Amino acid sequence: MTYCVALKLNAGLVFASDSRTNAGIDQIACFKKMRCFVNEGDRVIVILSSGNLSITQNAINLLEQKGRHGEARNIWSVDSMFDVAQLLGECLREVRKQDGVFLAQNNVDAGANFIIGGQVQTEPMRLFMVYAEGNFIEAGEETPYFQIGETKYGKPIIDRVITPETPLSEAVKCVLVSFDSTMRSNLSVGLPIDIACYSQAGLRLDFEQHITQDDPYFSQISRRWSDGLKGVFASLPNPEWLVDVDMNNQFPPD
Amino acid sequence: MTYCVALKLNAGLVFASDSRTNAGIDQIACFKKMRCFVNEGDRVIVILSSGNLSITQNAINLLEQKGRHGEARNIWSVDSMFDVAQLLGECLREVRKQDGVFLAQNNVDAGANFIIGGQVQTEPMRLFMVYAEGNFIEAGEETPYFQIGETKYGKPIIDRVITPETPLSEAVKCVLVSFDSTMRSNLSVGLPIDIACYSQAGLRLDFEQHITQDDPYFSQISRRWSDGLKGVFASLPNPEWLVDVDMNNQFPPD
Repeated sequence: MTYCVALKLNAGLVFASDSRTNAGIDQIACFKKMRCFVNEGDRVIVILSSGNLSITQNAINLLEQKGRHGEARNIWSVDSMFDVAQLLGECLREVRKQDGVFLAQNNVDAGANFIIGGQVQTEPMRLFMVYAEGNFIEAGEETPYFQIGETKYGKPIIDRVITPETPLSEAVKCVLVSFDSTMRSNLSVGLPIDIACYSQAGLRLDFEQHITQDDPYFSQISRRWSDGLKGVFASLPNPEWLVDVDMNNQFPPD
Repeated sequence: MTYCVALKLNAGLVFASDSRTNAGIDQIACFKKMRCFVNEGDRVIVILSSGNLSITQNAINLLEQKGRHGEARNIWSVDSMFDVAQLLGECLREVRKQDGVFLAQNNVDAGANFIIGGQVQTEPMRLFMVYAEGNFIEAGEETPYFQIGETKYGKPIIDRVITPETPLSEAVKCVLVSFDSTMRSNLSVGLPIDIACYSQAGLRLDFEQHITQDDPYFSQISRRWSDGLKGVFASLPNPEWLVDVDMNNQFPPD
């Protein structure tokens, strides 16, 4: 399993992915699910992936190779993020066409999803989600983020906190809390977490961070969030209608 | 969709279910998903259900009817919760056998799950989850709760707070926070929430509550939890590595 999230804020883009992969419960490994394509001053493109690892890796490798071989329409030559998302969708379809039938023979799921975002030249920053079929959607004002993989445990905190106005550093904090909730409830999502930040119009990657087990900031966030939640929970009143029941339990009748 | 949760604590059992059902996104209705069978001094049985509404209703109606018709082995006659869970599984299989093929013709999912718990005579309280195939598992010390339906959004708070020692009133509070998170992130789970509490060895239902839109306690919990979370989140430090990026955003270079 996997958890990836990307936010599109006024200040910039935040990308985060975990690193745990599993083929069955007894074959767990660690792979980076974030891939960055940067040509400073020209374009920054970040791709997050979930699903069948051979499919996602091959699709991205194909995208990269087409760029390296200088095909007419490639990741370094097109002039919009829309085109970049389309290229990725095409690579995904190509890989699935090639490998899908062999996977299907063994009932292996060839499903794969991507989040792809960044900025190309003078175009505004954009963020897309590419579905397993190669089609895609774009993030807008109302929903400024996408998640793929094990998305549910970590969604509530994002829904509560993130708006387009959220500063990048606060957004990174929120993303780490979201990962903490997810990893607590689902063993198939695990450290290290890769984080990348892009500031609007910068056309360079501001920042990449690789958060491992020993990361002091993540440990602090995780502990303080847990303690804080318990504190808020303890401060909420108990339902009055149940006080009698608790009392009965404390003093059971003979 | 649906969200149901039941906790087995030292003090007793807590059951909760939402009321929203949908057949497609444009056909939303309100049905109670909790059914109680009580014979004071003899047995208390509570059933929560998720999945295809006609299947879950018919399975429970069949269970009830077999009891009313006085079949030899019925919900009022058997002397253990294990037998009760087995009877429910049998009723589910009977209904699926009868209706399943017709549903399959129209690609309608006949899946259905139950949580069933309570106490029969001198046996200890017990809690089971019945799968769509009619087989079932029992809650133990390590995992003192079951969820069915849209389970993920509301799981983190339960994982953080609930232990077998949690008092009933605090458990009810936790369950309501769990519902609040779920309803916030998934429109297909909705009020009213039904809550039932059972105190260990009481052999009567202590308490049933029907929580609607206007419930002052739930509104208070929901608002204070949201404010509290935001407060804890705000109190967490931002990552130091990103302060420069924020600064750059505040004072963009000319």
